[in-house]
This record gives sequence, structure tokens and C-alpha cells, in this order.
Amino acid sequence: MAKEPKQLADLFHDTLKDIYFAEKKILTALPKMAKAAQSEELRAAFQKHQAETEGQVERLEQVFEEIGEKPQGKTCDAIMGILDEGKEIMDEYKGSPALDAGLLAAAQAVEHYEISRYGTLCAWAEALGHAKAKTLLGETLDEEEATDEALSELAESAINQQAQAEAAE
Amino acid sequence: MAKEPKQLADLFHDTLKDIYFAEKKILTALPKMAKAAQSEELRAAFQKHQAETEGQVERLEQVFEEIGEKPQGKTCDAIMGILDEGKEIMDEYKGSPALDAGLLAAAQAVEHYEISRYGTLCAWAEALGHAKAKTLLGETLDEEEATDEALSELAESAINQQAQAEAAE
Repeated sequence: MAKEPKQLADLFHDTLKDIYFAEKKILTALPKMAKAAQSEELRAAFQKHQAETEGQVERLEQVFEEIGEKPQGKTCDAIMGILDEGKEIMDEYKGSPALDAGLLAAAQAVEHYEISRYGTLCAWAEALGHAKAKTLLGETLDEEEATDEALSELAESAINQQAQAEAAE
Repeated sequence: MAKEPKQLADLFHDTLKDIYFAEKKILTALPKMAKAAQSEELRAAFQKHQAETEGQVERLEQVFEEIGEKPQGKTCDAIMGILDEGKEIMDEYKGSPALDAGLLAAAQAVEHYEISRYGTLCAWAEALGHAKAKTLLGETLDEEEATDEALSELAESAINQQAQAEAAE
């Protein structure tokens, strides 16, 4: 029997597994990033996003249920690579006044990966007629965009402080 | 002699090397994605972005020059992971009517990585007083955002066609 060619529904399911794996990895990375952060505000931002990410994992589990599948992850090379770069920053910039700027950049790379994935998943959910799944994914997309914006604002103040400190040396 | 702690200027330089490496990897990936694309429009979009990416590499070389450094890449795990996922899609969805939707999603993940990096680099260039570098990086940021938008529009029409084909089966 010839194998059926994969369809958009399979692509949706595969990508759901990809982001489910990614979110769980992010949940293990965030406490390390919070611990490494120098400023109280950045630590608080990472802690807030940790709680939000837990909710996003639950939402993904609801989406799996909506399409009649069991929640399951699939290795996501992209998030592994993005988080590896974050680890590298934590090692190389430990004790550096530029550490927070680096952590913020790493966190924004994570957010942008998620924004691209949730944007795609929302469009596919709509095309496939999964209205409830689309709403759930859209809620997470909104959260990720808001987080990215909040990180941008923190980055502005972090780099300004850092640049001023360097100029005063 | 104690090692000087790294500064924002080092972070800027390191991240410049990261995206320089990434752009060059993207240049090798785009022709493969163009070849795999099923629709003429998607192939044309990848080819257009190939030419644009060549210009972005040149701009990065000018930025290196602006900060008195030689253009040099540094392995970027993030882009390797993102492009690996794209390769996986090309393999797993070869011959599938959902291939273009998958290629578009992969390309948008690449764009979002670049948007996050160029956004960060622009902010750092400004903080460090590299006005010319900021302008160059900002030009590329605008291009990446426009590309992401164009891909979103293509994605809409690709998935609609695909979903209609599936519904008609």
C-alpha cells in the first residue's frame, strides 16, 4: 500500500509537537536566565514569563485535545540552537556589565521564534476549520507579542545604563 | 593580568559575527528552498530574497568596517537549528500538497530570527554612537520585516488553496 502523502493537517500536528517541545525547553531555561539576570526588573520579567509559559503549555494541551491527539513533543532543533546561544551569553558575559543586554537579546530571539510559530499555527488552524484551537493559539500569540514589546522596553533602559557606565569609565 | 570584563561593544561585535554567519548560511539554503517550492510565486519570492540577502551581507561588511573590524563569522547555533527544521520539512513533505505551506513557515522562522537580531543590533549601535552602522542595520531590518509580511500574504493564499483541495477530496 502506498503511503498517503502528508496533508496540511499533518503539518499542523507536527508543528504543534515542535512548539510543545520548545515551550517545555523554555520552561527549563527561564529560571536559569532569571538567576543570571543582574537587574531586579529583568529577573521579574523572566519570572512573569515563566508563569505565562506554564499557561501556554496548558493551552497547547487543549489544542491537542481539540484535534483529537495526545499532547506529545518532537525535538525542535531551532529552540535548542536559540537556547544554546543564550547559554553561551550567560557563560561569556558572566560578571560583565553587558550581561543583561545579552540576556534580553537571547530572550527576544526566543520570543520571535514563538511569534513566527504561533502566527503560522493560527493561520493553519483557521484554514483547517479548528475555530477553538485558533482562539487558543491566538491568545498565546498576543502574549508573546506583548512579552517581546516589554523586553524591548527593558532593553532600552538596560543598554542606556550600560552605555553610560562605559562612557563614564 | 586580569582579563577585562566584556562590554556592550564586545556584545555588539559578537552578535554581528553571529548574524554574518547566519546570513551566509541563509544564502546557501535559499536556492534549495526555491528549487523545492511548488508554486511559481513562492519560487520567485525565494529568488528575490536571495538577491536581497546578498545586499544584506554587503551591508554587514560595511558595519564591520565602521567599527574597525574585519568581517568574520561565528557559528550561529540558532540559524543552524532553524535551517535544519526547514530541511526536515523538505524531506518529510516532498510531494505533499502541504509542502509550500511548510516551506513558508520555515522561511518565516528565519525572518523572525533575523528581525530579532537586527532589532537588537540597531538598538546597540545607537547606544554605542555608531550612527552609520545603525542606519545600515535599520535598512536591513526594514527589508526583513517587509519580507516577513510578503511571506505571510503568500502563506494565506497557499494554505487556502491547500485546504480547499483537501476539502474537495
